[in-house]
Amino acid sequence: MPSQDRTPAPPSASPPYRDPAVPLATRVADLLARMTLREKVGQLNQRMYGWDAYRRTRDGGFELTEALYAETERFEGLGALYGLMRADAWSGVDHGGGPGAEDSAALADLVQRHVVERSRLGIPALFVEEVPHGHLALDGTVLPVNLAVGATWDPALYERAAAHAAAELRARGGHVALVSALDIARDPRWGRTEECFGEDPHLAARLTEALVRGMQGEGDVFAADKAPVVLKHFAGQGATVGGRNSAESELGPRELHEIHLPAARAGIRAGAAAVMAAYNEVDGLPCSGNRALLTGLLRERWGFDGLVMADGLAIDRLARVTGDKVCAGAVALHAGIDLSLWDEGFTHLAEAVERGLVGEAVLDAAVARVLRLKFRLGLFDQPSARPVPVPGHTGRALGTALARACVTLLHNPAGVLPIGPSVRRVAVLGPHAATTAHLLGDYTAPQRPGTGTTVLDALRRLAPPGTDVRHARGCALTGDDRTGLPEAVATAAACDLAVLVLGGSSARTPDTEFDANGAARTLAPEMTCGEGVDLAGLRLGEAQYALLDAVTATGTPTVVVLVQGRPHAVPEAVDRADALLTAWYPGPWGGEAVAEVLLGLTEPAGRLPLSVPRSAAHLPVYYNHKDTEYGSYADGDAGPLFSFGHGLSYTTFAYGPTRLTGHTVEVDVTNTGTRPGRTVVQVYLRRLRTPVWPRSLELRAFQGVELAPGECRTVALCLGADQLSLVGADLETTVVPGPVEIRVAGSAREALDAVPAVLDVRV
Amino acid sequence: MPSQDRTPAPPSASPPYRDPAVPLATRVADLLARMTLREKVGQLNQRMYGWDAYRRTRDGGFELTEALYAETERFEGLGALYGLMRADAWSGVDHGGGPGAEDSAALADLVQRHVVERSRLGIPALFVEEVPHGHLALDGTVLPVNLAVGATWDPALYERAAAHAAAELRARGGHVALVSALDIARDPRWGRTEECFGEDPHLAARLTEALVRGMQGEGDVFAADKAPVVLKHFAGQGATVGGRNSAESELGPRELHEIHLPAARAGIRAGAAAVMAAYNEVDGLPCSGNRALLTGLLRERWGFDGLVMADGLAIDRLARVTGDKVCAGAVALHAGIDLSLWDEGFTHLAEAVERGLVGEAVLDAAVARVLRLKFRLGLFDQPSARPVPVPGHTGRALGTALARACVTLLHNPAGVLPIGPSVRRVAVLGPHAATTAHLLGDYTAPQRPGTGTTVLDALRRLAPPGTDVRHARGCALTGDDRTGLPEAVATAAACDLAVLVLGGSSARTPDTEFDANGAARTLAPEMTCGEGVDLAGLRLGEAQYALLDAVTATGTPTVVVLVQGRPHAVPEAVDRADALLTAWYPGPWGGEAVAEVLLGLTEPAGRLPLSVPRSAAHLPVYYNHKDTEYGSYADGDAGPLFSFGHGLSYTTFAYGPTRLTGHTVEVDVTNTGTRPGRTVVQVYLRRLRTPVWPRSLELRAFQGVELAPGECRTVALCLGADQLSLVGADLETTVVPGPVEIRVAGSAREALDAVPAVLDVRV
Repeated sequence: MPSQDRTPAPPSASPPYRDPAVPLATRVADLLARMTLREKVGQLNQRMYGWDAYRRTRDGGFELTEALYAETERFEGLGALYGLMRADAWSGVDHGGGPGAEDSAALADLVQRHVVERSRLGIPALFVEEVPHGHLALDGTVLPVNLAVGATWDPALYERAAAHAAAELRARGGHVALVSALDIARDPRWGRTEECFGEDPHLAARLTEALVRGMQGEGDVFAADKAPVVLKHFAGQGATVGGRNSAESELGPRELHEIHLPAARAGIRAGAAAVMAAYNEVDGLPCSGNRALLTGLLRERWGFDGLVMADGLAIDRLARVTGDKVCAGAVALHAGIDLSLWDEGFTHLAEAVERGLVGEAVLDAAVARVLRLKFRLGLFDQPSARPVPVPGHTGRALGTALARACVTLLHNPAGVLPIGPSVRRVAVLGPHAATTAHLLGDYTAPQRPGTGTTVLDALRRLAPPGTDVRHARGCALTGDDRTGLPEAVATAAACDLAVLVLGGSSARTPDTEFDANGAARTLAPEMTCGEGVDLAGLRLGEAQYALLDAVTATGTPTVVVLVQGRPHAVPEAVDRADALLTAWYPGPWGGEAVAEVLLGLTEPAGRLPLSVPRSAAHLPVYYNHKDTEYGSYADGDAGPLFSFGHGLSYTTFAYGPTRLTGHTVEVDVTNTGTRPGRTVVQVYLRRLRTPVWPRSLELRAFQGVELAPGECRTVALCLGADQLSLVGADLETTVVPGPVEIRVAGSAREALDAVPAVLDVRV
Repeated sequence: MPSQDRTPAPPSASPPYRDPAVPLATRVADLLARMTLREKVGQLNQRMYGWDAYRRTRDGGFELTEALYAETERFEGLGALYGLMRADAWSGVDHGGGPGAEDSAALADLVQRHVVERSRLGIPALFVEEVPHGHLALDGTVLPVNLAVGATWDPALYERAAAHAAAELRARGGHVALVSALDIARDPRWGRTEECFGEDPHLAARLTEALVRGMQGEGDVFAADKAPVVLKHFAGQGATVGGRNSAESELGPRELHEIHLPAARAGIRAGAAAVMAAYNEVDGLPCSGNRALLTGLLRERWGFDGLVMADGLAIDRLARVTGDKVCAGAVALHAGIDLSLWDEGFTHLAEAVERGLVGEAVLDAAVARVLRLKFRLGLFDQPSARPVPVPGHTGRALGTALARACVTLLHNPAGVLPIGPSVRRVAVLGPHAATTAHLLGDYTAPQRPGTGTTVLDALRRLAPPGTDVRHARGCALTGDDRTGLPEAVATAAACDLAVLVLGGSSARTPDTEFDANGAARTLAPEMTCGEGVDLAGLRLGEAQYALLDAVTATGTPTVVVLVQGRPHAVPEAVDRADALLTAWYPGPWGGEAVAEVLLGLTEPAGRLPLSVPRSAAHLPVYYNHKDTEYGSYADGDAGPLFSFGHGLSYTTFAYGPTRLTGHTVEVDVTNTGTRPGRTVVQVYLRRLRTPVWPRSLELRAFQGVELAPGECRTVALCLGADQLSLVGADLETTVVPGPVEIRVAGSAREALDAVPAVLDVRV
């Protein structure tokens, strides 16, 4: 230890930073001024895996580990601790040893007491947890994945679910929620597509706002049931080449601004406490070392004053170009990273400062941001967890509501759905039919037996009395073992309807091997999606196609349900089955939601949050491509199999002409069918005069409307500067005067044919 | 006509611009000062299709058309005439009415006399012709397409072929050669992949230099057998999304500079007279209206003083964002376009100047560039064609030499090739076996019967006496008609070896329908490639796979030859056949080259100019991706089926250790086999310390070496600033000091495993 860094004596009297009445900025500055360089560096590190910090004792309590002692010794305190409650195949934590709903808060307090005691200045640690779709700890409520949330087109519902997840996190002693929100799904080969709200920047921005509002609430100081959000990932990670995880993105600054940055900007305007710098590079500049992105754009242009966290080991990866990890840490800090995750690079920041690789003022600014978040959380004033009771049924109710809302009916030409009264025998088939194990999405903690509802169980429970619901699995999710097909075929042949539940899985099992950052390296036998599981072909396991062929060949009307974290290419379902719906990863109660929709107990209301390709060879297929003259491939249609925004109902809707009053768009929507239903009114722009080449269509507003049969309602949506603006030649967002077509429709495909109203934009 | 534009009287005495002794710049300025606005605008237009300018007379001569009279009347002269000698399915010109080798010069003189007479100042027209792979007029020498040239890795040979093409063009009265050179093949779905030199910027740059040197020669004034080149297309057209023709490119400026601009810069340094602005946009800015690209980069930063031509109708396309074609013309002129092709927009430039949409000084600068090129061609001094005799056999010899050099042996694990003396009966099968119609590539003029050599004919002629060479077609190039399979199978079964000649075709037939710019809209029955013929699936016609399956199932050793304008996905050939080679589109004498290689009369010497994907789902697969940690897809290897640079010989080579002497790389190469052969020594960089994220590998030097059995030679390649430079954070090309790995190998794949030498770059 350098002599100038010898630890001073602890403060004698209660200093200003300890006084809750002192303004937050003053408390931060006061504390910072008292800290040694080593203590400061400690605040920027988040080295440990949280599950290494504790172990179960024989009496069922917890004790702290030598690893935690060593880590708190190293920097005389602890900046942040990742994943204290993480439980999954990677961490190896399960109900046998991990913290559950009952004792997590006690564990958190145990750790925090140690950290505060070990810290000369009594600085508590941040407990950072994975909350991508609910707090993914043991006993946490698993919500549908983001892609399913995108399919709901319902920010208000998602906001309530996000609020619940934050409350669960805080009730268990966690502080900070890591949530994917910013990645835009431009290539479904990417295994993290499930973590995206979809392909569209506007839809993602609205849901990101809802996330931030729901989790954080209002104000500088977080309520006891609110949690600061780290929005992941900044930026452009949805556009890596080939859909390959962590690969490069070649896109230009305008594409970045138009497509990949709006969700971040919206989240930051909504008050997001933090963002996470992405693994990928964009056009040669790795996000974690990109000062133009993290400081120039994020802080200076956008005015973001929150925290920037690095993705796991992303700083150390910079050593590939800096030559060593000390320089990597300096480059990352200089670029704008405040808090590291697992890296070695940030542990050497004192050396980096002393060698002049980065200024201490830069370090101080980062430390101040970490401290500020701790003050905002009230950790200095009340370091122990203050559980606000979370009603047990709320999580399940919200999860089920989201699951119902995400089920997207894609194809139902003869109206085989909803299942009619003439159907007395239903065959429920396929690898997803009778299990909840694969409904959950990546990062999910082990579930207690009995959690959730399978499609089969829900159909048995909900079908009209006397309905004979039979089951055969048919095949596994992966592989080409067809030995189960004959039973499935016989079952289908003996029934009036076959429900074929196919799809993929992001379920990690103990067989999975992981990289140091938790991405899957080798796969569990049935894992086809999730972080590190990119698919070239977008195809389900081969046996599933054989099962589809064999079942439909029986002549029994067949409904295909896809459970999936990305749009798989299953054009065969359209060709051969009588109906097709996708439930994404709907969470543990997804089976119930699917059964309700099949039976018509819930109206299908989901709308595609991304375009479904015909095959991987057709990529990319997003609707908001540039308005160029290119047409089709010589060997087939270049367009998607199903358009962004598409989703059928059991009723029908008619949209009246689009009316413009100033910048307000009005359209009369009528339920022209015989059942209630929800349509999502989608407002697309088609720009006519632009300084840069325009896209075919841009979604700029939407609203879900529930209508009873015959009911008509006028939907009015205001197009303000936010909706009309574009990214100008100088990359600034601006409103350009001139005519713009407004196209209101039920999907992007329909918008192409919609009669436009022309809005004359004035500035 | 505005009054101020009334035509002045013709000059009375011989003015300076007419005097060959006056400096070129003075002549241009003098002439420009005498011109009316209308005359100036006329110089920037190239409206007509050349084949509309003439018709055959009953006595076999030519006469001019009313269309030409109207066009020369409109602007009192003619700036440029496109395609006077174009002959193909689109133009509808064939040997029945079009100009052949004998009478093209007379036709050109007829048109030129009229143009000069109609022009008050006696300004001749430029005759602009398609010379993408030879001058593609009737009777012109058809060379292998660029992708085949790329496979030769032989700039010196290509330079000679390019010189021949220019001589043919000039001998027939043409002036300016349109040649694709700048498009980098990053997505083989693109139908114009055949027009690219490959995926690599360095290889493309070396071949572009050879093209310019070969066609243009040296000096300000073009020799009578030299032609100014219009390098197509500037910029980024090889990176449009989905490989869709004319679609947008999303790439960022660094990707553009590193990959898509080096060929242009090399061509311009070599003296290229002109470039063509591309159809596509890059990150929102259409090339034809992009002043930063065409003026800021091209003229101001690179110092280019040549001509910028628009692609066909590309200026009018700008009306999508400008609102009308007058503004479109003004925007394009302001951006840096000098000469239009077919657009209406540029015909309104007088109005645009008068309305103040663009300054007359900008117009004058463009006119000066057009006039300068005419002076450089000597057209004022000698407007009629001055044919330099072109030896008839030279073209064929050069075309055959390129064809031999481009044949790339990909797979030959058991040494079934070359065909050994034990093979007495050879079955030559497949849709490409017995026709030259599909060997030629896009844009090609109708061929006189008997031109070229089929694989079948060449094998019959060249095989050892007594060899029984049998034939069955098996199937067509496209479709799934399998009725010919039994005959092919029987033929294969009765032989010692089957040669299966499969592939695609860019042959336009009169059935093809075309867009106004000549791109194919509907396809001839067997057309699978070429401009406007993009393929999602990269698959051959289905029957070809059935034929491959059936023939290999006979057990007869099978060699697959692919004739193609892009790398098709045919992994089946590797799995089932005994050898695989690709001949690209080798030109009319390609059958001879293929037969020679099969028989071992010519050693296979081609090297892949681009990576061959396993399937379209794996795209992109270029070798020079960024050096990120991403690995494989969960459903298969993300790497190519065959690597960039790969190509087998009938002999083997050993590369000694890499030695560095200063910046010179030396390696001893030994032919370790029993046959002569040519290896291409490829020098790749792997950068260690960089200001931006580096690529895995970058090809920066190469040299072909012919070695006799047992011969060893030291190959020395100097890595100068051009080879070591990178595109810095400011997008300027610069040499960064520090260590760089030098990896010398026979392919990019081998370079990954090569023992590197580390060069310590000093500046």
